Amino acid sequence: LVLAESELETVPREITGHRQVVASARRSGKNASRMILDASQHHAAMRRLPDGARRGRPDLVHLFLLTAMESRAAKRGQVRVAVHTRNDDWIEIDPTTRLIRNYVRFCGLIEKLFETGAVPAETPLLTRTAKRPLLPALDAMEADRLIWLDETAPRRRPAELFAKDDLDRHVVAVIGGFPHGQFQTGAPKTAERVSLWAETLPTWTVAAELTVHYGALGDDA
Amino acid sequence: LVLAESELETVPREITGHRQVVASARRSGKNASRMILDASQHHAAMRRLPDGARRGRPDLVHLFLLTAMESRAAKRGQVRVAVHTRNDDWIEIDPTTRLIRNYVRFCGLIEKLFETGAVPAETPLLTRTAKRPLLPALDAMEADRLIWLDETAPRRRPAELFAKDDLDRHVVAVIGGFPHGQFQTGAPKTAERVSLWAETLPTWTVAAELTVHYGALGDDA
Repeated sequence: LVLAESELETVPREITGHRQVVASARRSGKNASRMILDASQHHAAMRRLPDGARRGRPDLVHLFLLTAMESRAAKRGQVRVAVHTRNDDWIEIDPTTRLIRNYVRFCGLIEKLFETGAVPAETPLLTRTAKRPLLPALDAMEADRLIWLDETAPRRRPAELFAKDDLDRHVVAVIGGFPHGQFQTGAPKTAERVSLWAETLPTWTVAAELTVHYGALGDDA
Repeated sequence: LVLAESELETVPREITGHRQVVASARRSGKNASRMILDASQHHAAMRRLPDGARRGRPDLVHLFLLTAMESRAAKRGQVRVAVHTRNDDWIEIDPTTRLIRNYVRFCGLIEKLFETGAVPAETPLLTRTAKRPLLPALDAMEADRLIWLDETAPRRRPAELFAKDDLDRHVVAVIGGFPHGQFQTGAPKTAERVSLWAETLPTWTVAAELTVHYGALGDDA
């Protein structure tokens, strides 16, 4: 599962001096430019940013990861997750990690990851690699099936998305990690573009549909 | 969907004077006894409480609600949720509510709910009723099917839990809102006791399994 173009970044330089950002940095005792941008805290400051209305959503990343990594399919070892961000950061998560449940602590973890490149330093459970644009990264995965979730795509029933064979195939599914709007990148030609609902579904709802149905295949195996 | 015996409460009187609680109240500018107990903030203080290792988990309630209320089944109007707590508080949520995504703000909302009984005051989306012990409350629901999710119960395949008929029946499913351990109350005799996995599954994973499979019934209707 790849969360693509997710709105996860540190506070951009343009607004580190904004009153709201300075206040939130002081409150948490952090350096403003190392803080994770969070729309719920930095809303006023973000009005100055391009795409300000969709940026700063570490909560979506957290909910995506909790849903995917704690699914029955993941507990069977059938799910791996990666997070791609608007700035082409690429984050890989060791599937054996027990992800932090608390949102505030999760943000602290990501701040540390952006600072150091891996947490913990010794046996990293989260790693941030050099910049990886989305399409080449997907290409390098050599998927047998590449599913691209997009509300504008043809509608499919989630229960019919996977077949028994998919347990033995390398299936890569790409979910948008932004609150609304469209992918900035178009889907690769080899991708099956799929929509699961008439309107936008939240990131974690899509992750739940995919992991629950994929996990159900394993019950018959 | 009923989240039962959830670990949601304000800071108990025994520990409002604890150094860690006082510090967290000062930081957030709140009255200690009106703050929601949160294991991630009040861990040291909670060691003094009975059941201290499982209490203070508003994060589980939040994740449960986000998963259930944003599911495809909920968007079809097929899901209603209620939250029962360790102190027999009973919280009902208007299904049309767009639940707050941010965890910190969600805790603020629940604090206000505990203080006033309904938020917002005019057209309440969340209401907290008088104390309602779990079993009489379930009884009053007059379910056609009462499913009780419990890791010690006989194992069932989630994909086979619901049948077409269930769309027209009043199905009530009860999920434990605590991080580990057992229900304090036994299941009613009329309940189907069901387990979906060999080990404990997180609250939101169970909610995802139920809502995804129930939602899939609607695709054929």
